[in-house]
Parts: sequence; structure tokens; C-alpha cells
Amino acid sequence: MFKSILLGLVTSSLLMASSLKDEAKHAGLIAIPSNKTALLKLIDDKMNPITPEKVALGEMLFFEPRLSKSGLISCNTCHNLATGGDDGLDVAVGHKWTQNPHHLGSPTVYNAVFFDAQFWDGRAPSLEAQAQGPILAAPEMANTKEHVVATINSMPEYVERFQKAYGKNVKIDYETITKSIGTFERTLVTPAPFDAYLNGKENALTKAEKAGLKTFIKVGCASCHNGIALGGSMNKLGVVAKYKYMNVGDFKGNKNGMVKVATLRNITQTAPYFHNGQIKTLKEAIIEMGRIQLGLKISEKDADSIETFLGALDGRKPKVVYPVLPTRRATTPAQDIH
Amino acid sequence: MFKSILLGLVTSSLLMASSLKDEAKHAGLIAIPSNKTALLKLIDDKMNPITPEKVALGEMLFFEPRLSKSGLISCNTCHNLATGGDDGLDVAVGHKWTQNPHHLGSPTVYNAVFFDAQFWDGRAPSLEAQAQGPILAAPEMANTKEHVVATINSMPEYVERFQKAYGKNVKIDYETITKSIGTFERTLVTPAPFDAYLNGKENALTKAEKAGLKTFIKVGCASCHNGIALGGSMNKLGVVAKYKYMNVGDFKGNKNGMVKVATLRNITQTAPYFHNGQIKTLKEAIIEMGRIQLGLKISEKDADSIETFLGALDGRKPKVVYPVLPTRRATTPAQDIH
Repeated sequence: MFKSILLGLVTSSLLMASSLKDEAKHAGLIAIPSNKTALLKLIDDKMNPITPEKVALGEMLFFEPRLSKSGLISCNTCHNLATGGDDGLDVAVGHKWTQNPHHLGSPTVYNAVFFDAQFWDGRAPSLEAQAQGPILAAPEMANTKEHVVATINSMPEYVERFQKAYGKNVKIDYETITKSIGTFERTLVTPAPFDAYLNGKENALTKAEKAGLKTFIKVGCASCHNGIALGGSMNKLGVVAKYKYMNVGDFKGNKNGMVKVATLRNITQTAPYFHNGQIKTLKEAIIEMGRIQLGLKISEKDADSIETFLGALDGRKPKVVYPVLPTRRATTPAQDIH
Repeated sequence: MFKSILLGLVTSSLLMASSLKDEAKHAGLIAIPSNKTALLKLIDDKMNPITPEKVALGEMLFFEPRLSKSGLISCNTCHNLATGGDDGLDVAVGHKWTQNPHHLGSPTVYNAVFFDAQFWDGRAPSLEAQAQGPILAAPEMANTKEHVVATINSMPEYVERFQKAYGKNVKIDYETITKSIGTFERTLVTPAPFDAYLNGKENALTKAEKAGLKTFIKVGCASCHNGIALGGSMNKLGVVAKYKYMNVGDFKGNKNGMVKVATLRNITQTAPYFHNGQIKTLKEAIIEMGRIQLGLKISEKDADSIETFLGALDGRKPKVVYPVLPTRRATTPAQDIH
């Protein structure tokens, strides 16, 4: 009798566990594979396969301030790998301390490889395409293609690395330079306890985190925040009500009014929230999202529970050795802070 | 007969080699010790001994943008470890893109532990004292002590690291924070082929580099550029003639008109030259230095030869893993780009 009750309990607990995991999967939540080969397949670009040489080169370029007009701003300035892959500001700041004219913040670069599209309006289909933008944008790095190409080609150590990565006859043009940055960014994946859980490690999530996941699914967050990134697709912002700070900045999404859904991975590290960074806390973001996207008044208790689950999306960052960059040559174009 | 000529040649070549090394030592040039214990003794601070915990913490703080008012500028922004330990600009640029009001450039942080004094006017006696300046300076990081202290104390991971580094009862005040940065900076030492040569490895310098060293000493460069840093002491700028770009900026040195002698280590990587960065090439810097400090017209040939030697001062940088910094908390003070 006692034995059969115990068995019943164990079974139902197993069923519950398995059903929460199944629920998560049914809701469209997908784990970062723990298997390296499977992960590589997922993040790779068939047209430009990831190699260690390309990644090392792309890492140098990601930290290369001389890609900017001033020589002060690198990709990492706004997409800081030390602080969640962004800058913690409500509005991006670039060349000559210019604020983003649409009052847009810098989105994180971590796990951006899993996004359907890049930029808040999704105008770039890939990380490689995205990397072409900020270097030339006047309020960001404010450079020209010619300056960038001349800068990189003037330093023999860079030329050698491009040749090692792409072959002796590589043309080191703007596309190849930005493509290399994209390749590095593909590797910026941060597996989290949630992945371990979905991949079968039952104890990777605490009881409270599992309860939070349940709430997250029940409330409907996963209707937009799904896939591996728990975000990264294009969606309407303000499905049932207008975002309360929509008036800050003039951003209205793409031509169809669609906005890129932010990833929830490492979301505890990327405050402030929303495209214009007007919401300072995760709890307020959760409640506002419920109101404008789902037409729900999410209770304080449910918001806390969801926030607890989101903490389980804080991932392990890849180890990045800070690069020593090549020395300028006499032929390296001058930088200009003006 | 042949044997004795050969012996004579070998002896004289050995003598010559030994005499160049001796000449260098007599001229006051000192090697970075190859022995780790000897080096540690040299860079250590007896009042605040270097430990791995302090160095790791100091490294985090060196890369910590939230030490600045805006949250965008870290020590590494201007003293970039990727590009010779400085920013490659003729004038430092800080908060709100403000230029240094005296038109001073950022000096390198590499090997700065060997300087007699810090800042161009030598007003700080140590790296720890220096680190207190830029964080608060309005044209640099523009922060306040209160903001810095509240920021660091708001993040439990930092508190824990300070406790590990300094003991459970540590008071995490502005002095302890900046002291930690100084401790990290003490380790930024870059041994070069020149050191290997002085330490006994005869072939560490090429024939041309040895000839350049000879010229360097003969011309008199070592009268100011000596010690381990080949610089770092205070001296008059313009001993026999006025520096031709003295009119750019209003910097006149300390109250006695003394200016910190720049280190020649990694000098190929830290263009532009002089305190106000008006000289773009090393060769021009060498010739101008000869004119204003030594009253000499250094020939093109000698300048080239000296430049060749200076290349042998390019050192091996310590490996720095880019840190993952603690996440902001609700109590972390806001950043302000204005």
C-alpha cells in the first residue's frame, strides 16, 4: 500500500516534470544544444563556415577602435561583452557623443546569432549584414568604407591574418572585414541553466524557477519570446495597447510597424528595457508587456515568478582574451575626433 | 698565426659585445628582470602587496565603464591595452566628448609602474594615486566619489571580491577601489628583446638594433630616457631650444617647468608623440628631441638607426582575459550621459 502510494508520487512527479518540459517545448522554447557539433551546425554560416582563424580575426576587429572615425569607438563600446553585450544606456551614444536620433538603445550581441533579423527594425538578415551598419552610421562610428579598408590593409599583421583566414588571394574589402566581425559574433552564445534543464538535467532549475517557467508559459510570454533566443523575431509592439513610453523617440518599427522582439537570455544584465530604454526594472517590463501585448494585468506575484524564471536564462559567457592589436603604420589613415 | 688572428677576432668581438652591454648599463639603461621573483619585488608595493585576487579585481575595475558618470568610459577607453596602452590620439577625449583642456594626450599605462611619477606633470607619486584622478576629472570620466563607491558596493559580486582581496572587514571606499586599479596596472609589464639582450642573450638584438643602441647612447638619448622604463623621470622639455609645437595647448609642466619623460618601451605603438601629440612619426620625434634637448642636429641616418633600436623595445603584453562584470542591481546608481 505504502509502496504503491510512493510509486504513485514518484510517477506523478516525473510526469509533472516531463510535462513542464514538454509544455516549454510546445510553447516553442528551444534549448542551446549541449553537444558542440550540434551547436556549431546551428550557428554556422554555410556560405562562410566558422573557423578558429576567422573567429580570432573577427574578435580583433570587434575590439578595434580604429574602425571608427575617431579611433575611440569599437563594436565593443556599445555591445560591451563585459556587461551583457550592451551598454546599459537607454539611448546609444556614438561619435562626438551623438545620441541615436531615434532614441534607440544598443541591443545585446550575445545570442544574436539566433535572431531572425538584426537591428530593432530587423532590416539586416544576418550578423554579417548588421556589422556593416554602425561603422558607417554618423551617430555611431561615423567612418567611411574607404577609411576602414585603408586602415586594415595598412597593417601587415591584419593582412596576414586575413590571408590565413580566407586564403592568399583574399580581397580585404569592407564586406570581408564586416563578415569577419559577424563570424566572431556567431560564437557569442551563452548556455544557461534553462538549457541544461531542457536538455534533461532536471535539477538545473530550482523549484521557484520551474514555477516561474510555468507562469511564463501560462501568461503567454512565449507567444513572442520563443525559439532559442526567447525572442529575435519581428512582432508588433503594442498589440492591444500602446507602450506607455512610445512618445520617447520616433521609432515606429519597420514599414509594417514590426519591432524585433528582444531576447530574454541574460535579460537581467541588459537593463534598461524596451527599444528606447525607458523601463528600468525587469518587473515593470514584464507587467508593461502583459498590458500592451497580451491585454493582461499580470499580478505582482506572477511578475515576480516570471522574473525568477528569467534569472535562469543568465548564461555562461565564452572566454575572450583581450586582443593585442597591430601597430599603426605610416600609411595608416589618420583618425579624426571631429 | 691564422689561429691567433681568429682568436683575436673572437676575443675582440666578445669584448665589443660585452662593452656595448656595459655601455648601455653605464648609460643607465636597465633590463626588466627575466626572473619572476626579482620582477615581482621590483613592481610590488610593500604597503599593499600584489596578490592574484587584487590583480583580478583591479582588472575588472580597469575595464569597468560604470566607474564613469556615463557608464561608457573605462580606464581602458583611453589607456587601451589593445593598442599600446593609450588611445592613439593627440588629445585625450572624455565625458561628452570633451577634449583635454590642456591638449594633453593619454600616456601609456604599460610599464608605468617603473615611472618615478605619474601624469605628464608628475603630480601623482604612484599608480594608485594616479588612478584617483581621471575617474573624477570632468573632461575624463566625470564621476563623483560617492557615485563610484555606491556603484561598486551595490553589486554583491564586487563586495565579495573586495572581501577576498582585502579581508572580510574591508571598507570599499574610493581609495580601496582606485588602489585595486593601481595594483592591476603594476602588472602591465612588457619584456622586450632589449631586456633579453641586457640579461645576457647576445642574439636577442639584431646587428642593426645593436648599432642603433650604440647610436642612441652616443647621441645622448639615455641622459633622459634611462632606467627600466627608458623614461618616467621628470625633466625640462626644451633644454636648449623650444619644442616647435609648444603653442598647441597651454601645458608648461609642473611648477618648476618639468615634464614627465615618456617611456620608450612600445614607443612604436604609441604615436602620436610628445605631450600634445603633435609629432606623428618616431623619426621626427627623435630629430626634434635631439634639437631641443641636446642641441644636436641628428642626421637622418642616425635617426633611422635609433628608430631601429627602439623597435627592440616592443614588448610582450601580459595575457588579459576580458572580464565579465557584475550585473547592476536595483540599488546601483543610474548612469548619466549628460
